[in-house]
Amino acid sequence: MFTKEEIKNIRSEFPYLNIKPNGKEIIYFDNGATTQKPREIIDNIVKYYEGENGNPHRGAHYLAMKSTEVYENAREKVKDFIGAEKSSEVIFLRNATEALNLVAYSYGRNELKEGDEILISILEHHSNIVPWQEVCKKTGAVLKYVYVDENMQIPFSEFEEKITEKTKIVSITGASNVVGTYPDIEKIVKYTRENSNAIFILDGAQYVPHKKVNVKELDVDFMAFSGHKMYSAMGIGVLYGKEKLLNKIEPFLSGGDMIEYVYEDHTTFLDAPQRFEAGTVNVEGAVNLAAAIDYINKYGMEKIEEYEKYLTDYCYEKLSKLDYIKVYTTNSKDRAPVISFNFNEAHPHDVASILDTFGIAIRSGHHCAQPLHRFLGSNFSCRASFGIYNTVEEIDYFVEHLEDVREVLGIGSK
Amino acid sequence: MFTKEEIKNIRSEFPYLNIKPNGKEIIYFDNGATTQKPREIIDNIVKYYEGENGNPHRGAHYLAMKSTEVYENAREKVKDFIGAEKSSEVIFLRNATEALNLVAYSYGRNELKEGDEILISILEHHSNIVPWQEVCKKTGAVLKYVYVDENMQIPFSEFEEKITEKTKIVSITGASNVVGTYPDIEKIVKYTRENSNAIFILDGAQYVPHKKVNVKELDVDFMAFSGHKMYSAMGIGVLYGKEKLLNKIEPFLSGGDMIEYVYEDHTTFLDAPQRFEAGTVNVEGAVNLAAAIDYINKYGMEKIEEYEKYLTDYCYEKLSKLDYIKVYTTNSKDRAPVISFNFNEAHPHDVASILDTFGIAIRSGHHCAQPLHRFLGSNFSCRASFGIYNTVEEIDYFVEHLEDVREVLGIGSK
Repeated sequence: MFTKEEIKNIRSEFPYLNIKPNGKEIIYFDNGATTQKPREIIDNIVKYYEGENGNPHRGAHYLAMKSTEVYENAREKVKDFIGAEKSSEVIFLRNATEALNLVAYSYGRNELKEGDEILISILEHHSNIVPWQEVCKKTGAVLKYVYVDENMQIPFSEFEEKITEKTKIVSITGASNVVGTYPDIEKIVKYTRENSNAIFILDGAQYVPHKKVNVKELDVDFMAFSGHKMYSAMGIGVLYGKEKLLNKIEPFLSGGDMIEYVYEDHTTFLDAPQRFEAGTVNVEGAVNLAAAIDYINKYGMEKIEEYEKYLTDYCYEKLSKLDYIKVYTTNSKDRAPVISFNFNEAHPHDVASILDTFGIAIRSGHHCAQPLHRFLGSNFSCRASFGIYNTVEEIDYFVEHLEDVREVLGIGSK
Repeated sequence: MFTKEEIKNIRSEFPYLNIKPNGKEIIYFDNGATTQKPREIIDNIVKYYEGENGNPHRGAHYLAMKSTEVYENAREKVKDFIGAEKSSEVIFLRNATEALNLVAYSYGRNELKEGDEILISILEHHSNIVPWQEVCKKTGAVLKYVYVDENMQIPFSEFEEKITEKTKIVSITGASNVVGTYPDIEKIVKYTRENSNAIFILDGAQYVPHKKVNVKELDVDFMAFSGHKMYSAMGIGVLYGKEKLLNKIEPFLSGGDMIEYVYEDHTTFLDAPQRFEAGTVNVEGAVNLAAAIDYINKYGMEKIEEYEKYLTDYCYEKLSKLDYIKVYTTNSKDRAPVISFNFNEAHPHDVASILDTFGIAIRSGHHCAQPLHRFLGSNFSCRASFGIYNTVEEIDYFVEHLEDVREVLGIGSK
């Protein structure tokens, strides 16, 4: 567990806490949407553009070679971070959404046919729903859902019932961005392997930033995640894929750098990772994601997870005691650092706007999970999500000002 | 024309010239691949992450709103820069390659059928060839080429011959990245409109960084370009599209932020630009592209173009006089700032490697234009391409050291 001193030190690394962008210190509880960046990660971008910037892979001069070196080192670092077998299994893309779309296009649209089934859960983010709807539209495949119980957990019987020989894709989130559920991925993958020929895709967008992950141990076929939710720059995300699958499926985007030979009438393609990285790659982003991994490793993912869990438990307990608030987050102690809730009778946008006047940043809306919200019986919710720089004092301040929200909106009783 | 003093000032703005990454000053002639970045554009990234960073479009707190504001202001700036009618016609993507692929997927694969024709030129970059080959594979459409004469210009008769009622897509580069040709886009578009129902796509990757462009005056349907070739950060590119077309074609990537309503079994989509920006957008990139536009506007595109033309003419004249060198660049004075050439009997990679030892960075290879190189009768070439910070002194130094290359490789006579 981080000491007070360590937390103080961590907070001093984040410029947004010193600069006070809005004229006051911001209590930033919107980490599920995107995290703030520490000084050393911002500096890493400067360092890259000052003396390492070039277009990699195709040049025989210093900066082209330097940018190739830092880019490929970043791939190596990501490989180690997620426990992949080879760095060629790490594809740099823009974000987790693009990664899921890549699989939907290159695998889904080409390999599925009428009557095949895709299984996802009601917990999914839109990025793990809509691409599969589109695959079904194009191929005649059928999209099926597993649902959650009153504690936001997926009963395993749901998988037993819904995974069949027709199932060709199972794509499940590692962590719900609304209710914090951690589905038991290892168990689900094992069951999928034993009872179908489906590929298994892990949406790691809310999982990889908060929990040590090992794709080989989990035995997933693909995993998608984004850098910007784990202290890295925007515009960089990763698709992990098993080598055999990556080199079997059709390329997605085509153009420079992913080809072997281009003739006027046809083209031959390289293997992964180049196969899926058409055009000039985002070296800045890849290098910055590597810096974010260094940052996380400096403190240790286990310690970060423990601290975020502590904050989440603390906030959950406090909010659960307020009778004018309904908490949606699972009561399981094994959960992602995200507390979703609603004020009785108040629109989440109003709640977030009032909290903003006190310098508290929470998210309000459907959090890109409309089907889940419909399932929960609400169109929207408020969401406080935590990162390494948050504190119990911030949570106290937040909870204290929920009372102000209640008063301003004239809801319930004190 | 820039004065010596102005050039000195411009050069002082670029950290790579002061830092000397490779232990000596680098003569950076690889601007066609990617440009270096001036201090103010690097600083712009720092400013964004220190006090403006958030996930835009869906938040009611200060940083979510601030990031939305800077992101949408960037869109407005790009709109003005390219002369679009509305900012909603500006789609932020990763790079020009992704932009061309978007049109190939969302328009090409859905709208074309067997026997339809796609017309491109032999000058195209792989990113404006391979996506169309893939469209043809999927739809049965036919890919046709217009070719160039011995001066690397496309005879207009080529268009008259090859644009027919069957032509559904014409996609032409604004500037060749190898031989510097500027096809007469305005005339080609006019002819396309009058003689077919084809849409016209402009590959602006090598054009937008060097010439004032106005998409409305050119009357193109789509235009693609990348930020990193015009002094901006990596990982950001733009697709311009006419509003009517953008809202008519199918979305490309699907997921968060591009939807209106997501139900378990179907989804309704937003109009452009959100329609094509699935997932967390790269705010850093968009804001940085806007900073690059400010940078270019500070000096004026006309003045930059004039200076780059001056450098190109100077280099062209010098290289044309060397009997052991073959220059591929068009001799037309209206050309992009790129000089491609080969040493008799020497592999371009060796040439580039030897020049690198003198701190000179040129590109060697096929420059993602294999069909053009095959047409030129060579597999590879050397390429020197210029930017705002280059000087005639650098060109002199470069030409002087070509003689060293000749000696090291034992080619020809002095």
